Amino acid sequence: MLATPVLLLVTVFSWKNAVSTAPVSDLALKSLNVDVTPTNLLAQCDEKFLTQTLDHFDVGAPTYQQRYFVCDNHFRPGGVMFFYVGNEADVELYLNHTGLMWENANEFGAMLVFAEHRYFGKSVPFGKDVTKHMKYLSTEQALADYAVLITHLKNEWKRNIPVIGFGGSYGGMLGSWFRMKYPHIIDGVVAGSAPILSFLGDEVPLDKGSFERIVTFDASEEAGSAPNCAPNIRRTWPAMKNLAKTKQGRAQLKNALSLCDSVKVESVADVDVVMDWAKSAFDYMAMGNYPYPSSYIMNGVSVLPAYPVRVACSYVAADFAANDDAGLLSAFSKSLGVYYNSTKDQECYELNASSNESALDSDFWDYIFCSEIYQPQNVDGVNDMFWPVPWNFTADNENCKSEWGIEIRPLWATTQYGGRKALRAATNIVFSNGNYDPWSGTGVLQNFSDSVVALSVEGGAHHLDLMFSNELDTPSVLAVREAEKQHMHKWAREFYELTAAVVNE
Amino acid sequence: MLATPVLLLVTVFSWKNAVSTAPVSDLALKSLNVDVTPTNLLAQCDEKFLTQTLDHFDVGAPTYQQRYFVCDNHFRPGGVMFFYVGNEADVELYLNHTGLMWENANEFGAMLVFAEHRYFGKSVPFGKDVTKHMKYLSTEQALADYAVLITHLKNEWKRNIPVIGFGGSYGGMLGSWFRMKYPHIIDGVVAGSAPILSFLGDEVPLDKGSFERIVTFDASEEAGSAPNCAPNIRRTWPAMKNLAKTKQGRAQLKNALSLCDSVKVESVADVDVVMDWAKSAFDYMAMGNYPYPSSYIMNGVSVLPAYPVRVACSYVAADFAANDDAGLLSAFSKSLGVYYNSTKDQECYELNASSNESALDSDFWDYIFCSEIYQPQNVDGVNDMFWPVPWNFTADNENCKSEWGIEIRPLWATTQYGGRKALRAATNIVFSNGNYDPWSGTGVLQNFSDSVVALSVEGGAHHLDLMFSNELDTPSVLAVREAEKQHMHKWAREFYELTAAVVNE
Repeated sequence: MLATPVLLLVTVFSWKNAVSTAPVSDLALKSLNVDVTPTNLLAQCDEKFLTQTLDHFDVGAPTYQQRYFVCDNHFRPGGVMFFYVGNEADVELYLNHTGLMWENANEFGAMLVFAEHRYFGKSVPFGKDVTKHMKYLSTEQALADYAVLITHLKNEWKRNIPVIGFGGSYGGMLGSWFRMKYPHIIDGVVAGSAPILSFLGDEVPLDKGSFERIVTFDASEEAGSAPNCAPNIRRTWPAMKNLAKTKQGRAQLKNALSLCDSVKVESVADVDVVMDWAKSAFDYMAMGNYPYPSSYIMNGVSVLPAYPVRVACSYVAADFAANDDAGLLSAFSKSLGVYYNSTKDQECYELNASSNESALDSDFWDYIFCSEIYQPQNVDGVNDMFWPVPWNFTADNENCKSEWGIEIRPLWATTQYGGRKALRAATNIVFSNGNYDPWSGTGVLQNFSDSVVALSVEGGAHHLDLMFSNELDTPSVLAVREAEKQHMHKWAREFYELTAAVVNE
Repeated sequence: MLATPVLLLVTVFSWKNAVSTAPVSDLALKSLNVDVTPTNLLAQCDEKFLTQTLDHFDVGAPTYQQRYFVCDNHFRPGGVMFFYVGNEADVELYLNHTGLMWENANEFGAMLVFAEHRYFGKSVPFGKDVTKHMKYLSTEQALADYAVLITHLKNEWKRNIPVIGFGGSYGGMLGSWFRMKYPHIIDGVVAGSAPILSFLGDEVPLDKGSFERIVTFDASEEAGSAPNCAPNIRRTWPAMKNLAKTKQGRAQLKNALSLCDSVKVESVADVDVVMDWAKSAFDYMAMGNYPYPSSYIMNGVSVLPAYPVRVACSYVAADFAANDDAGLLSAFSKSLGVYYNSTKDQECYELNASSNESALDSDFWDYIFCSEIYQPQNVDGVNDMFWPVPWNFTADNENCKSEWGIEIRPLWATTQYGGRKALRAATNIVFSNGNYDPWSGTGVLQNFSDSVVALSVEGGAHHLDLMFSNELDTPSVLAVREAEKQHMHKWAREFYELTAAVVNE
């Protein structure tokens, strides 16, 4: 079998096999009650660039232009700065989807800043030669960028105000590490769906198998899916492996799954690729298992339905006879269409069809994964509905070597960022996790103190709480957003109380 | 006048003008009740090397061999690791002088580790070409070295034990930053004489003039010096400037100060050099103003007497007539001899005589100063006994540009390490400062919390509390060492209580 493919956090939009078409219209989205971006967000912001050194720890290093947006319509004296801690995509994606910042801007008198992560969006150094200069892409340099940017903004705007950070997924990891390493720069952080306990070397052994277990949970009755779904999906893999053995079987498989003629299915290895492709659909639908139709996981290009895993499961809800693998696979093909034919205009599946628009983003995430934040994964095929893919460090390391010429340092992330012990030393971080989100298994699910707290979004997928409000929001996400707001108010209060005390000294 | 020379923290031993001779014998030192190293310390330790990446934030960077010592005679299960956070010299200096670690080793069942700072001692990368590769010399990389080393040691020795850090001067700054940035690696830190509030951009304006004010305080009656001392020294500068104007005057000056024939005193500028040279003697005697004879400030090469500033002051204790500049300067020459003729075998002063053994250490400290931890200094000549040297950022920056080709980032140290605000977020740091130490003016002199505390060593100079015990120790330093020990016990207890709690979860 293939080694576990590297799972990206939220970069499905750049996943090379994803079928994408032109963006759907806002009107169409609104009629679906979708998480559609208010169309005027970008227009409320100024796009700016700051010259940053590429190596903050080497003053002689070259520089690059870091992009950021300032949206200042809601600021008033006594207010705050809301700062989006950019992660692995064009920052406009986060600007357009982080409703939690926009919807609280007025109440907090907040100036909004969205900072782009180096090497992504328009913040790419070295132009076309960027891949020859990967050494400046690191989490520490990204955090230092943010520290310098905030210091610059406070001076430039002459605003001595509290700074509240927001980040989702990898951005949530960065945000929480930012608070731990730079508490003098950022006064508190809301970290949505940040799997910061996904690293080796912490004080308790890492649960490497939680991701696919939670994907499987999403396909269970308890999570609102058809009871037969997970058992049926579990059956598809041996069915495919069986058909893979013969030419005729492979043709049947190709036909049952509605793969296009151009897709090469001529060997067992080719079928392994098909299986990975199919599994990925569920990985990403689980991340995007929101209570309303959303384009977020599709990078705004198309829309997944509300609770896409439930919809996908509905197609494999039947009792398929033991000898009806063809029927099972045909049904499964429809499940996959929820993700791979979200636009409902594909007649067959092209495994490689994709716009390559964000391929570099995907590559660069892979580089960070290899160089610094290696997240081991184990799939046992018992507690999840897939097939066993035991954790294989050697294979992962070989991938990183062949792709980037670098070797994984398995203990680095914990050495640098500290796992549970660092969380006990930290303050002012809210971690939120939805139990539908496969990344929640390595998130922070218990309070570490009064100010490092875990909020649980029941029935929530990947950082649902950061999104714009929607009438289909669950009571749980509403309560979590309210709790987050209370923490944010407390952080702002602490800042102003302290500032007053310093002035009066 | 000359710009303020860059003041090194404790690197007088490498100061290029220092006169040095062969080391004095241990026997001679013992007869003086000197802070002499127990001669067998190094023999109790293993010298080891760890392969470290030169850029921890770029996995593909080259590596170097970091030296460290492990001294394991006192360890027992349930014990701790005492970790010296190496600073800007050969780590053997710290191994041989950090009595606080050695003298508490048995009580704590401690394994002792002395880690050498990259680019110093035997931990110099690139061999003779090192000055062509300065970019890897940074505080952040040094801290990451220590984090990796401790992680390595805990695994290699299979010891899950608390780690208590020690550092003096720049090592104290590094130690306290280490605790702030890596609280999961180091459980608490004793930071002696760490001027971590010496940077621009903190929430209150920086007192740039404290250094020479405290040097002047050491030359005052309140600090045990002759009442006339500071006023007389203040008179020497205009006297020298006056003599500088004529050839005859310069000859008189040279004669009165006992400068060797070879010293060039042919212009006003040459006299400026002499004045800087003279002032430096007081800077370093103030740092080394210990209650007993000590070789520490002299890098073990020679010995300063007990309270060297008092001794130096004793030579300029008289009332010199207003027209007796020659008499004043002759007396002043003897004051300077306390430092520049500590071996009492020099017949005249060679401003440039020096062993160049540690010249690179001095250069490398200068690089760190320029690249990351720029400490502005201002001398007003009113509150201190010198002449006005107003803070001049432009001149300092030009020096860094011409020396290293790099420009100072005035706000970097505070952006990265956070000043007072970061101290409020920190835990488990003891800052000690002696009021005789000119660096104490920018040290932490007030508690920030129950666990970030300031201990005052009355009558103490540069990190006296870290040294070996001496029968001439003041009651204050004994009390400070006792208080430090209580904090250290608390940190160890916290670690073991937490470890037990995690195991029982």
